[in-house]
Amino acid sequence: MKRKGILIVVSGFSGAGKGTLVKKLIEKYDNYALSVSATTRQPRAGEQDGREYFFLQKEQFEQKIAENGLIEYACYCDNYYGTPREYVEGQLKDGKDVILEIEIQGALKIREQYRDALLLFVMPPNAEELRRRLVGRGTETEEVIDKRMRRAAEEAQGIEEYDYIVVNDDLETCVGELHEIILAAHNTPNRNKEFIENIRKELEGEK
Amino acid sequence: MKRKGILIVVSGFSGAGKGTLVKKLIEKYDNYALSVSATTRQPRAGEQDGREYFFLQKEQFEQKIAENGLIEYACYCDNYYGTPREYVEGQLKDGKDVILEIEIQGALKIREQYRDALLLFVMPPNAEELRRRLVGRGTETEEVIDKRMRRAAEEAQGIEEYDYIVVNDDLETCVGELHEIILAAHNTPNRNKEFIENIRKELEGEK
Repeated sequence: MKRKGILIVVSGFSGAGKGTLVKKLIEKYDNYALSVSATTRQPRAGEQDGREYFFLQKEQFEQKIAENGLIEYACYCDNYYGTPREYVEGQLKDGKDVILEIEIQGALKIREQYRDALLLFVMPPNAEELRRRLVGRGTETEEVIDKRMRRAAEEAQGIEEYDYIVVNDDLETCVGELHEIILAAHNTPNRNKEFIENIRKELEGEK
Repeated sequence: MKRKGILIVVSGFSGAGKGTLVKKLIEKYDNYALSVSATTRQPRAGEQDGREYFFLQKEQFEQKIAENGLIEYACYCDNYYGTPREYVEGQLKDGKDVILEIEIQGALKIREQYRDALLLFVMPPNAEELRRRLVGRGTETEEVIDKRMRRAAEEAQGIEEYDYIVVNDDLETCVGELHEIILAAHNTPNRNKEFIENIRKELEGEK
């Protein structure tokens, strides 16, 4: 079967470890491409244009919107965030599985346009562990942590929209699981229409 | 996550190799249980009651139907074939993934009753290879082979009813793929309702 790339959306609670997970996945296997988002927010120390984000001016971002150059975008705290279309579609065409790290509203927009997108939700083993990880970062105030926990409770309402959940307890195990789920997804009938049509034609010819 | 068994239906063209595939799968991994069908047809040479089939008298079979003791059954060539409910449900309860080798009508009946059943369709790499395998058996007349090829063309119409297809080109690769698909299936939200509900409750409690 000719391998067609899958558009993969990875969502999950802040603190569930999806960033690390995705990074490991891309390091370990060579069938993945990571989509880099565009944003109008200021780069933070150590962030590099084209690596963490494509940093754009507001006018540039709005130009992209006008040209249909983003497959989804949203506005948070007065800044735009979005997914550039060109990179995603180019990589899919090359047979790469393209990963977007994005939250649920974006995930649902993606699914509207790409019906074969695969939606994955990363979860911690339990809520206590989630809090422990957020505290463990040592970079957030208690207020911010409480806010993230409340946000997680909200996000948890949308889990059924996703195709698969993965529980990030042990990182290496979870990376392997994520990879297996994506491999399996390549075998659904809707992602192999051409192969199925071909064998149907052959079988008709055999009659 | 507590592992709940999945009811797995394996269908595929005659000659696609699903019997061998399922046998290898069960030998290789220990999370599977194979459901043995009941039938009223006569045992063939070498067949053993409880291994290939449970061989029943017509009256016994109809008694089972009356007691709702079969999760599906059908009549072919004046013989009944069916899946005993007790074994399947007992194994699922024990956390085993139970495999049924069954054709599409049966598969759809299973799905009506077990919404979380996983439907897998085994395919040959192409139609020519299917014919080659049927001929290679050396046990069938040309007429029977032609009939099977025509039947395959009919069965191919139902492939979209299945969750996944697997292409049986190299047996070992295919066994591994089948296993991965089943592992992945354990991670869908509908098969982890309890885990999701628990974490939701915990997160609500954290607010």
